Amino acid sequence: MPNYKAPVTDMQFLLHDWLKTQDHYQRLGLSDYDADLVNEILSQGSKFAEEVLSPLNREGDEQSCKLEDGKVTTPNGFASAYHEYIANGWNAMLGTADYDGQDLPNSIAVPIQEMLNSANVSWRLISMLTESAVLAVTKHGDQALKDTYLAKLISGEWTGTMCLTEPQAGTDLSLLSTKAEPLDDGSYAITGSKIFISGGDQDWTDNILHLVLARLPDAPAGVKGISLFLVPKIMVEENGQLGAPNTLSVGSLEKKMGIKGCPTCVMNFDSAKGWLVGGPHQGLACMFTMMNDARFQVGLQGLSISEAAFQGALEYARDRLQSRAPQGVQEPSSKADPIIHQPDVRRMLLTQKALTEGSRALSLIYAQQMDIERFGDEASKAKAENIIAFLTPIVKGFMTDMGTEVSNLGVQVYGGHGYIREWGMEQLIRDARITQLYEGTNGIQALDLISRKLARDKTGTMLTDTYELFAEKVSQIGHADAKAQAEAILQEWHQTALQVKTVSPVDLAGAAYDFMHYSAYSLLGVIWLSMSDTATQSENTVLKQGKANTCAFFLKRLLPRKDAYKTNLLNSAEDLMAVEGSEFDYI
Amino acid sequence: MPNYKAPVTDMQFLLHDWLKTQDHYQRLGLSDYDADLVNEILSQGSKFAEEVLSPLNREGDEQSCKLEDGKVTTPNGFASAYHEYIANGWNAMLGTADYDGQDLPNSIAVPIQEMLNSANVSWRLISMLTESAVLAVTKHGDQALKDTYLAKLISGEWTGTMCLTEPQAGTDLSLLSTKAEPLDDGSYAITGSKIFISGGDQDWTDNILHLVLARLPDAPAGVKGISLFLVPKIMVEENGQLGAPNTLSVGSLEKKMGIKGCPTCVMNFDSAKGWLVGGPHQGLACMFTMMNDARFQVGLQGLSISEAAFQGALEYARDRLQSRAPQGVQEPSSKADPIIHQPDVRRMLLTQKALTEGSRALSLIYAQQMDIERFGDEASKAKAENIIAFLTPIVKGFMTDMGTEVSNLGVQVYGGHGYIREWGMEQLIRDARITQLYEGTNGIQALDLISRKLARDKTGTMLTDTYELFAEKVSQIGHADAKAQAEAILQEWHQTALQVKTVSPVDLAGAAYDFMHYSAYSLLGVIWLSMSDTATQSENTVLKQGKANTCAFFLKRLLPRKDAYKTNLLNSAEDLMAVEGSEFDYI
Repeated sequence: MPNYKAPVTDMQFLLHDWLKTQDHYQRLGLSDYDADLVNEILSQGSKFAEEVLSPLNREGDEQSCKLEDGKVTTPNGFASAYHEYIANGWNAMLGTADYDGQDLPNSIAVPIQEMLNSANVSWRLISMLTESAVLAVTKHGDQALKDTYLAKLISGEWTGTMCLTEPQAGTDLSLLSTKAEPLDDGSYAITGSKIFISGGDQDWTDNILHLVLARLPDAPAGVKGISLFLVPKIMVEENGQLGAPNTLSVGSLEKKMGIKGCPTCVMNFDSAKGWLVGGPHQGLACMFTMMNDARFQVGLQGLSISEAAFQGALEYARDRLQSRAPQGVQEPSSKADPIIHQPDVRRMLLTQKALTEGSRALSLIYAQQMDIERFGDEASKAKAENIIAFLTPIVKGFMTDMGTEVSNLGVQVYGGHGYIREWGMEQLIRDARITQLYEGTNGIQALDLISRKLARDKTGTMLTDTYELFAEKVSQIGHADAKAQAEAILQEWHQTALQVKTVSPVDLAGAAYDFMHYSAYSLLGVIWLSMSDTATQSENTVLKQGKANTCAFFLKRLLPRKDAYKTNLLNSAEDLMAVEGSEFDYI
Repeated sequence: MPNYKAPVTDMQFLLHDWLKTQDHYQRLGLSDYDADLVNEILSQGSKFAEEVLSPLNREGDEQSCKLEDGKVTTPNGFASAYHEYIANGWNAMLGTADYDGQDLPNSIAVPIQEMLNSANVSWRLISMLTESAVLAVTKHGDQALKDTYLAKLISGEWTGTMCLTEPQAGTDLSLLSTKAEPLDDGSYAITGSKIFISGGDQDWTDNILHLVLARLPDAPAGVKGISLFLVPKIMVEENGQLGAPNTLSVGSLEKKMGIKGCPTCVMNFDSAKGWLVGGPHQGLACMFTMMNDARFQVGLQGLSISEAAFQGALEYARDRLQSRAPQGVQEPSSKADPIIHQPDVRRMLLTQKALTEGSRALSLIYAQQMDIERFGDEASKAKAENIIAFLTPIVKGFMTDMGTEVSNLGVQVYGGHGYIREWGMEQLIRDARITQLYEGTNGIQALDLISRKLARDKTGTMLTDTYELFAEKVSQIGHADAKAQAEAILQEWHQTALQVKTVSPVDLAGAAYDFMHYSAYSLLGVIWLSMSDTATQSENTVLKQGKANTCAFFLKRLLPRKDAYKTNLLNSAEDLMAVEGSEFDYI
């Protein structure tokens, strides 16, 4: 496994120089977070990721998780790493101070979260879902629920899960059949089976809080009849002590392609006692509080795995001696040159680098909006909410597709060695592959973007607010040519979005995937021009030159991808719908 | 695992209607192969693939191979399937009749080979390499070598391996250090270690013949000092009986991402006795006889896995009920519609179908040229050799990249279930991934195409002959619009190829990968227009309509990819070469 080194220099450049987060924290009344403190947090986080999590990643994949006598065992070292993680307060970064959280801005937490995923995405998944559970309970739980559970969730003493999917109900939650029967004491008896539950059980904590979607007896059909329940693994008594086990169990562990260090459970609830989170039949809205957070976090996983794959490939390309470079001998004392001097290897490395750094910048633009949503005034909050809503499917869908592309390039740079497990590069492909599927497949992200966030947003403010945010970035570009180029990309994107939003529902669905990627490449084009413009002012001449050269590469080799997406999204869906029945397979 | 059904209807259409192989066999003096015989062979081959090989594929991945006491065990059923395979004569399809082979045309064997790979690529690999070994011994072995080994290799009583790679010598074979010392009896003592040896040992046959690249004592440095040796696992005595074991052993089995049913061995040769194949220092040419065959076969694996992934996805999309279709309710009696009615799912399925069927057509164009190379007159032979040389890197590089794209789409159609091992879809991704790496990475294929086959072919006949073959296809298109469109695609490609061949070596290397894909999409465009034109004459109205609709989809949604590749390949490599040292990672 390549040794992970957190890309702190790039993160600092993006936060301090590009996004000017110092001014941003001032505006939000968060001026305690000066540059030194931010740098110190990044430094501590990088140590934990590099020294504690990263060394467990390869072996965790080989060991995977076990289920014996109904109990899950995670790979060696995973539990103790978690105990160190919560002892050092990392789990509480984003929790509310009302329950001993740190109320850290997301723009500081997101780089840390990126590091955790890069170092060991299997390990990270459970704490990620706990953070989502914290959000749901904080936003939708009643006082009693919060008082009983929130401090433990925020500290990480207990973990949380998200129990949505059933065998017959994945994308389509209207089909879910888990039942919730009201009990006399105000709680509910939950009965049903849930699949794909990450961290459904683990050997890290005394208790686990399952957030479960189920139907009340009087529930209307479809998604309007879904409610959310908090179902603890172990009952919590009035004094806060742990009591009897709840009537729920792990049916089995899934055998998966990757993220093998994370236990993915079938969970059976057998009249398990649970408490309503939010109002009856309001489960979908509550669930989306968790889901939107998780979607961003999964997008981040795509970025994180890309970074890990890039680092591994770069290290190998610098070390591996094969053939001579076409531009002439590079290492006369060796029989061959490092393959990093091969133009085609550089094509792969620079594709990895340009996509990864561009996506990191996008993730931090998003994080900055999360800061505003939490700490800003009402007007800026509303705008930030719109931008977050619009960008969520792009971040999730694009960055995870990228994770698969970039991790595949990582293996390709290694040649045949990339296919061998001990090098750790093929694990990155396997770990990345789930990110395109869970928390809503990328096809669903694309539909969410083009339908809910674009076409059905009658006032158009989600698009407009997003456009204006990027227009502001464009306006700040100093160099006239770069500014004009960014302006042209942004205008073309905005006009195309306005054009596509008016087509029929079928054409919209046919255009969805291409629109998502078209949007991502367009926005990354603006981001790269903006970033490299900022970098011209940097005192770090290596970073300055690196950003300029990578921007040139992105504009030349990757931005043209948007044109093929654009061509496709402007097509009607007629060709997609024309094929019928056995025309697919002639059988 | 999806049940594999060989796409016999499509294969028959391509052979009989599109390529008019009946006329082709007449021209080559092979008129015994009438349509009934060809159909009977396809039918028998499909039964073996569907009923014997396919059921072993999923379990083979779970069991993988074992090494105990120096002996390899393959998964349950693999050996007996192989015994059935050779008993039924499949291994001898392409062998020369001089040693009891069937001398079958490649255009009949290639569809069978496609089926074998689709059903179980891990199992197929060993017989594939044996076929390559047959070619090398037939072409380069002396009479004694042929008499001793060839009949056994052709029947499959013994298998063959290709021992090229060493830890320090992969892409760059000039670095290989395995030694061959001449012995008094005319044989050689081979000493060295080879890695990534598929079928280095197995529990299928009594003997294994290793074709090993090594250096003679007086060898010049570099690739001009490499010789090829045949090194049997068990010595063969004068009477043809098996004698003492040779001094070679399996050092270890690699733990791999996929193709787990195939034993990938580290082979140690310790003064093992071997015999020269071809002249001293002529090893590279001999090796390329095997390698070029293997490259085509690996390309075919990409196609085969694509077909399997398409079939799996199609079956699931027809069965899986989630949500309603945007064009209106499709199954009123169910709570949801099959996802095949979703436009975005159709985008994925049609991408799979269009790439797979287009590539199958390309594989059979190639196979037809192999027939001509073997059975044609001198003039047509020379032309076929040129076409094969030009198309080999395209078939290998493009079709295996496609295998990864299409198998990833297969998983995507399944949503989260695609990530679960028991469904068998994620295995296809893992099995496909090696095809982009072995027998020369796809970056090496791209360099081979643009450099050896295009720029350094001073007379330009490899390009010209390939161009003329496709121009002939264009000229046969009946419909004027389709013909004009195909003509435009082909001319653009030809002009672009002539333009790019003159650039500097560094720019050539920078353009290589894009030129390979640009070529593939251009040629597939011609192929689709030609195929669907032929299909308008078909009595099978479903196939006729299916080809027309899929052609429309290909032209609209996939052909535009070539434009992005074209833009990139016409760029200089300046942007690739600009980034220096720590500009890659700022460390």
